[in-house]
Formats: sequence, structure tokens, C-alpha cells
Amino acid sequence: MLGTAAVPLNLATVFLDPSPSACAAVVGDAVVGEFNDPAALDALAKQCDVITYEFENVDVAELRRIAKRVPIVPCIEAVRISQQRHVEKAFFESLGLNVAPWGFAETAAELPGALARSGLPAIVKTDRLGYDGKGQRRVQTDAEIADAFTAMGEVPVCVEGWVPFDYEVSIIGTRAVDGSELVYALTENRHRDGILAQSRTLGGQTAIEAAAQQAFQRTVRQLDYVGTLAIEFFVVGNELVVNEFAPRVHNSGHWTLDGAQTSQFANHMRAVAGLPLGDPALRGAAGMQNFIGAMPDSAAVLGVPGTALHAYGKTSRAGRKVGHANVVMTTPGDRDKSLETLDSMARDSETQPL
Amino acid sequence: MLGTAAVPLNLATVFLDPSPSACAAVVGDAVVGEFNDPAALDALAKQCDVITYEFENVDVAELRRIAKRVPIVPCIEAVRISQQRHVEKAFFESLGLNVAPWGFAETAAELPGALARSGLPAIVKTDRLGYDGKGQRRVQTDAEIADAFTAMGEVPVCVEGWVPFDYEVSIIGTRAVDGSELVYALTENRHRDGILAQSRTLGGQTAIEAAAQQAFQRTVRQLDYVGTLAIEFFVVGNELVVNEFAPRVHNSGHWTLDGAQTSQFANHMRAVAGLPLGDPALRGAAGMQNFIGAMPDSAAVLGVPGTALHAYGKTSRAGRKVGHANVVMTTPGDRDKSLETLDSMARDSETQPL
Repeated sequence: MLGTAAVPLNLATVFLDPSPSACAAVVGDAVVGEFNDPAALDALAKQCDVITYEFENVDVAELRRIAKRVPIVPCIEAVRISQQRHVEKAFFESLGLNVAPWGFAETAAELPGALARSGLPAIVKTDRLGYDGKGQRRVQTDAEIADAFTAMGEVPVCVEGWVPFDYEVSIIGTRAVDGSELVYALTENRHRDGILAQSRTLGGQTAIEAAAQQAFQRTVRQLDYVGTLAIEFFVVGNELVVNEFAPRVHNSGHWTLDGAQTSQFANHMRAVAGLPLGDPALRGAAGMQNFIGAMPDSAAVLGVPGTALHAYGKTSRAGRKVGHANVVMTTPGDRDKSLETLDSMARDSETQPL
Repeated sequence: MLGTAAVPLNLATVFLDPSPSACAAVVGDAVVGEFNDPAALDALAKQCDVITYEFENVDVAELRRIAKRVPIVPCIEAVRISQQRHVEKAFFESLGLNVAPWGFAETAAELPGALARSGLPAIVKTDRLGYDGKGQRRVQTDAEIADAFTAMGEVPVCVEGWVPFDYEVSIIGTRAVDGSELVYALTENRHRDGILAQSRTLGGQTAIEAAAQQAFQRTVRQLDYVGTLAIEFFVVGNELVVNEFAPRVHNSGHWTLDGAQTSQFANHMRAVAGLPLGDPALRGAAGMQNFIGAMPDSAAVLGVPGTALHAYGKTSRAGRKVGHANVVMTTPGDRDKSLETLDSMARDSETQPL
């Protein structure tokens, strides 16, 4: 989707991806290689005026090496912070933002101390490389945490106190080279099995939306960030608790392709290319339904009122995000009805034999 | 732009184009060959489940031959009618729609008769292969028409009575396989040197818009048309006079990429693939500025309020459409201000040495 956004801006793209059938190669050239492979990164750098990413688990030392030759946007510091949960939590605390009570443990001996800080119940998460609910375990008692640590391979863990949240939201925005900023409408997110299933724009959440925007501003200004960034929060009453952030375009902003005047992808590419940003204004009540594992029938999806289809050209595979549908309607009620229909299609296609 | 619209629908595309550097090849496979080359058309047909077009000057006999193997959408009959001005005029008259008084002449001997039907002043146009104001001459007197005929190479001509129009508009819409139809907001078009320079959506032109929609409906129903189609009109007081039509996506509908909920390109691809159509609703006061010859600076264009850029990745050449900018604003007044700024950028880049 970043590649598609680059085409009308006359930006030629080269994609580094481990798979020779990477879907992005439809719109640009491909370098096939692992994300941490120095030779592949060199080959990419040789062809580019600027490098950006939509996957933040790339070796920071490699990025720093490459950045001596080609600018990497957004900044490597954002990548570094996002790669370790305990560093991320400390970063948001340093900005004066709420995070769940948390502890960090690298060894079994440090587990009791971490748990003392987080409280119970808690979620034990691998400090690195977690996504889509992978590498997480809920623990209810002191005794369970040692089992969880062993089961997770005795890697460093971040122990997070359970936040009894009412719902989850994310704020997505873009910052340009000249420091100008914009944010999209606050988005409510619903997960299933730890994977984002649905997002929808919220209206009238003024206090919460303002707090989320402030968190976005503090984050991008602290990092002198350029590009699109997402922050996920738990909402508890009228309070926001930062869950995590992503230094890239984000699944919960995919609705902007149809629901905003300028998409998160177009604005990210504008920012990366040093161009002025576009209007993020909402075009109606917008939402997104993810398709996991397998795509439902295109005609059925497009028959749902207000719907646009975004298939990724990926082969079916359990747990894999293979596409999404966006919905834009005049009223939130009509948008929600369409999302409900799409959700049952998504559940049906997920449970089909692949 | 059709190719880009195909990507999220999971439609794989193959493009026939005479140039090995055709910009569409960015998003699909390419067959390099002339549009009327039987071998090239065969190679295209071999790879496709359905063929569509965005250029209607293809040999009809060749299309009929190919259509025995692969469906061609929209219908070849629309191509046939659009290729000869006198056939097109007779077609619209048969639908009960107004056209300028016109005559047809294949030989010099037939010129006086044609002129008697059209009246003076008149525009003499080659019956075939005219576009962007090419192959046209204005004549003021009986004597001038013979000179025009000679100068144009003594090919068959359509002689059209001059219509003292107030302004020009076009209606663009899409019809699906199941006969469902939609139309976009009526668009006002401004030409410079016979080439479309600017389009903008109109508000409150109720009677004219309804008449244009009726013309669209009669046309697509008569042809059992599937896909996007455009009809251009002269507006004279409260009357519409059909100028010509295009059986394809149209330059005066390029604003729909940003100004409508679903673009003319997305809806064309949906129709061609037999999928349900998407909402054509306006997202604001929309408009488009063409860039002819050379692109202005991207940052300057995107600095104009409400603007999105659509560069075609084409090399600069006098008279060539190399890109456009769309504008979407809340009010027509603000939209017009942005279009004015873009127009002066377009004029500046047109007159730069290439």
C-alpha cells in the first residue's frame, strides 16, 4: 500500500523482502533477502535516495551502518525504542504519559521483582519481537510466572499489570520534515485472538481524542520524527494508558485509504520524500474489517454498502492478514451495520479449510 | 490509473502498449505492440480472462476477431460508434438527444451539401481519429471549407455547426453487468488549445444535471454497456447539446480519484470484473488541473491547499498530458482558489524549455 501510494507521486520504489513473491513487487523493483542480511541491505541502499520501512524488527546496528550512506526515515531511534517493550514503556513514562505498571526480567531470579512492580493479574510478554498477540501469556498467580518464563524460552520478558480497559483506541498521524503535523480521527480497535479484527472511527470522544493527540505530539517531537506513527491505548474511564506504538503505517489506520481525504500511506510517502502533507479529514463514518487466513468472495464483500476492497495478493495461510475491507457511510449506525456483515464474512472465510 | 485500481481488487493486469516504457507496466505485465497488431492482440488475449481499453481507436474488425476468444468490455459497438463522428451524431439523434447541426462529406463534391446542413460558422473535423482538438478547423465562409478539406488531407469530414455555448460539461458514470448504474457529479470543463485544462464539479445545476444523467442512461441502456462512460456536452442556456462521448474512463473524471468515494477507475475495474459498483458520492467541492508537456515541482503542487498529485511517470513532451493535480475542498470558492494557483503552475511548466 505504500508502494501504490508512491506511484502517483512519481517516486520509484525498490522493496526488500525475504519472499520472491512479495506483493509489493507488483508496484516496484524487488531485492530478495532477509531484513537483517547486510548484503541485501547494501543492495537496497545502492538503489535508493531514501529508505523507509513498514516492519520495525530490523537490526538496529545494520540500520545505523546503512544510514551512513542513505537516510533512513523515520529515525532509527524510533525503531530501537519500539523493539524492546521495557525501553518503550520507559520512553512513554519519560514523556509523562500513563503506561500499565510494569517490570522487566532477564532471568528467573528477576521475576518476583518484576511481578512486584506490575501486580497481578499480569501479562508476561517477550521483551522483543512480539506482534499480533504472539509471545504473550496471562498469569494470575505468583506461581504461574515461572512456568510462563520457561514456556517462553527464558528470554527477557516485560511483565505488565493487567489493565481493566473499557476499550482500545489508536491515534495515527504524520509529521513532515518541516515539523508540520497532522493526526487522523481517533480509532477504536477490536482484536480477536490477539490480532486486530476491526477498527472504526470515533466521534464525540473529545477529551480522550485530545489526550491521544497530545501523546502523539509529545512522541514525534521528542524523536524529531518524520513519517506516519501510531500509538495504541487502553481506555479506562476517561483515562488513556499507552499500550504500545509503531514507528510506521499501522493496520488500525488502513481505513484512511477510503475514509480520509489523504491516506496514512500517501502521507507517509509524502513525508519520506520531503513533500507537504495532505488533508487527513474524515470522509464520513469509517471503519475496517481485517481478513485473516483467507479472503471472502470479492463480489460478496463489495455488495456490502459503502465497502471498498483491499486484497494483498497473498496466498491463504492460517493467521495471516490477507486483505481488508473499508467501509465509509454517512452515519456511524450504517457503518456499524456494514462492519457487522463483513465480520461474519471474515469469520466464515477464516474457518474454511485452506 | 486503471492498473492501480486493479491491484487491491486482486485483479492481475497485462497491458498492451506500443511503448516498452508504458507507465502502466509499473503495476502489471506488458505486451509491447501496436494497438492494431494482430500478433500483439493475440498475445494479450492469450493471457487475459477479459479485455478492457482506455483508448478507443483500435480496429473494430480486430476487436471482433479477438472477442471470439475473450470478452471485450465495454462492448465493441461503443467503440465502433465512437470512431466516426457522423455515426456518433446519428446515434445520439436516434436517442432523442440534441447534437449540433451537422453534415458529412467524403469528397469535395459533398462539402456544399454538408455545409448546408451544418450552417456557418462551422467546425470541420476529420470523421476519424480526432482527439485533443487535433484534426479540427473552424470555417467562417463557404470558400474556406474547400481549403480546410484539402489541408486535412481530403479524408472524410464531419462538418458541425458552431454552437455558441456558455460552457462545457461532462457526465461520467458506470454501469455494471447486472444493469445497475451510477453517475458522478456533473463536471464543468475548460479547454486550452483544444486540450482539457481544468475540470470542476458543479453544484445546484439541477435541470442540466438531470438532463445529462438522462443522456447517460439512454446511452448505456441502448448499448447494454458495461463499464465507465463519459459524455461531453455544450451548455446553451438551459439546454444541453451532446458534443461527443468516450466509451472509457475520461480525463474529465480524473477528479474522482480524490473527490469521489469510489473513483471512475475503481468502478470501471469493478464493472469489467463483474463486481458490484462503489459509491460515487462527492467528498467535497472537487476539481482537477491537467499538466501538459512537463510537470511542475511536486512540493509546490502539494503545497496548494487540498491538493493530491497524480504524475504519470511519462517523459516531458510538448502537448503531452504528463500528470494532473486534484483538489478537494469544503467550499467551491476555496476549491477555485486552489485551481487558480495550480493553473498558473501548469502554464509556467508548459512554457519551460523541455
